[in-house]
Amino acid sequence: MSRSLLVIGTVAFDNLETPFGKEDMVIGGAATYASLSAAYFKNDIRIVSVVGDDFPESFLNTFREKNINTEGLQIKQGEKSFFWAGKYHLDMNTRDTLDTQLNVLADFDPIVPESSRNCDFLLLGNLMPKLQRRVLEQMNQRPKLVVMDTMNFWMETAWDDLIDMIGKVDVLTINDEEARLLSKEYSLVKAAKKIMAMGPKYLIIKKGENGALLFHKNQVFYAPALPLEEVFDPTGAGDTFAGGFIGYLAKSNDISFDNMKRAIIYGATMASFTVEKFGTKRLLEVTEAEVEERLQDFVDLVQFDIILDSTI
Amino acid sequence: MSRSLLVIGTVAFDNLETPFGKEDMVIGGAATYASLSAAYFKNDIRIVSVVGDDFPESFLNTFREKNINTEGLQIKQGEKSFFWAGKYHLDMNTRDTLDTQLNVLADFDPIVPESSRNCDFLLLGNLMPKLQRRVLEQMNQRPKLVVMDTMNFWMETAWDDLIDMIGKVDVLTINDEEARLLSKEYSLVKAAKKIMAMGPKYLIIKKGENGALLFHKNQVFYAPALPLEEVFDPTGAGDTFAGGFIGYLAKSNDISFDNMKRAIIYGATMASFTVEKFGTKRLLEVTEAEVEERLQDFVDLVQFDIILDSTI
Repeated sequence: MSRSLLVIGTVAFDNLETPFGKEDMVIGGAATYASLSAAYFKNDIRIVSVVGDDFPESFLNTFREKNINTEGLQIKQGEKSFFWAGKYHLDMNTRDTLDTQLNVLADFDPIVPESSRNCDFLLLGNLMPKLQRRVLEQMNQRPKLVVMDTMNFWMETAWDDLIDMIGKVDVLTINDEEARLLSKEYSLVKAAKKIMAMGPKYLIIKKGENGALLFHKNQVFYAPALPLEEVFDPTGAGDTFAGGFIGYLAKSNDISFDNMKRAIIYGATMASFTVEKFGTKRLLEVTEAEVEERLQDFVDLVQFDIILDSTI
Repeated sequence: MSRSLLVIGTVAFDNLETPFGKEDMVIGGAATYASLSAAYFKNDIRIVSVVGDDFPESFLNTFREKNINTEGLQIKQGEKSFFWAGKYHLDMNTRDTLDTQLNVLADFDPIVPESSRNCDFLLLGNLMPKLQRRVLEQMNQRPKLVVMDTMNFWMETAWDDLIDMIGKVDVLTINDEEARLLSKEYSLVKAAKKIMAMGPKYLIIKKGENGALLFHKNQVFYAPALPLEEVFDPTGAGDTFAGGFIGYLAKSNDISFDNMKRAIIYGATMASFTVEKFGTKRLLEVTEAEVEERLQDFVDLVQFDIILDSTI
């Protein structure tokens, strides 16, 4: 039943500082969070990315233990992995980038291994739009579903490439500010219409602690984020969400709107674990029982029954 | 079945400026929006408030046409009604107060008419906490449910009175910033626990365009706001929400947690109309068919079905 899933994005080291603590050289990156999140659904997963020779062999083994094929993960001898350092503000929704070192990313040419060019599902994690296109072009046929994540940085520095890519994907995931930047509309409903007119049949607008909206034609679905007592480290939440979303779709091999609703709830559930600890720590140890319990929390959180009639 | 509802709060003139337009001397005030919203449910409603002799007789008739008893609405001859002028920023979630003239509010002594002292439901709209207490003390017996709305201004200027009042009510409604200010906790989950420990068995945290959370013991319910194409004027949205909430509870005479969920959806539905036009214009003309349609939009917005099992 389950289908193969190709994930591209960064694999990186992060120095993280939040109001709750500080940790250096935490393994992160979009492809890391997304693939580990998707791996929960026991799909056949492959990643395409790049690291330097400073990347620990032990974490490559972690990928493999989770059935994530790393054939497409290039290891550049004598070079260093992509590095990002950031500090979160008290509200955890905003952060300052303290340092970015592209390193191996600077001249990254993503190569999709021959064995991965027929994948059914493709997640284009946040990366230069040109590199996202390079990957899509290497596929033997168009995947059943292409999901793309991006960020404001590419809107500011690679507008034309980005717009071109947006025209080629099925689902775009961005946050609310990015949706406004991309559409030049303040109302998210108007923004969604404009963005879907650029190509994607589905648009997911992420609103951090305020959940996410899924748009398709005239339909809208809203998934709240679970109100958590502690958000320890938001790094990777968006990537975990995207990975959980496409991972569930690949597992169920059903890309109907109703199934996308479920996929969003699964994505939000996976993300709710990621933010509980630094890096991928929590995601790596999450159990089925914990996921089921949190899904039930989602049901309890939003479920209500109103009998619609006109008796008032 | 339906029970009597007493609403206290301001009845006022507002000068409103939004990115979409400007209108002066719009009739507003917490008690106005809340009672008109509650009136949708055809309850027996009474208001306690104060205006000057500048308040139009025609609007008093509007209250009466909606079966809102105005016996407790004092009209001060030779004085002017409470006046507020505000300007909304582009994001519509923040606004600047340009002018506030207390006028009749400065020495307002709310008197609950004898005939209203047995009301079953009481909404203490946003007002000086001392005046909210004055009203509660005049009731012949404690109402079945007391809902109180307040704002950051009283946290900054009347802390002790406010804390005292918070200890006397069943449901408190505040926004997310106010919840943080009141509890000195950033996490809304922690804030909710602290605030409920101050007295209220139920806490509603309003998050504007991001919906509202209902807390009770260890339970949480989340009602999103409908994603609207246009928010024309947010003035009165919170009061309309509170009025719809208690209006539905009074109508159904059921204060269970499950019914409060429905009441919140009704409150959010009523508020979604208020913001479509300046002042109370849209609220006054809303039809049952429109409300039913919007309730269906809410159901469509959040409804999903996940079969919880461990087959993954």
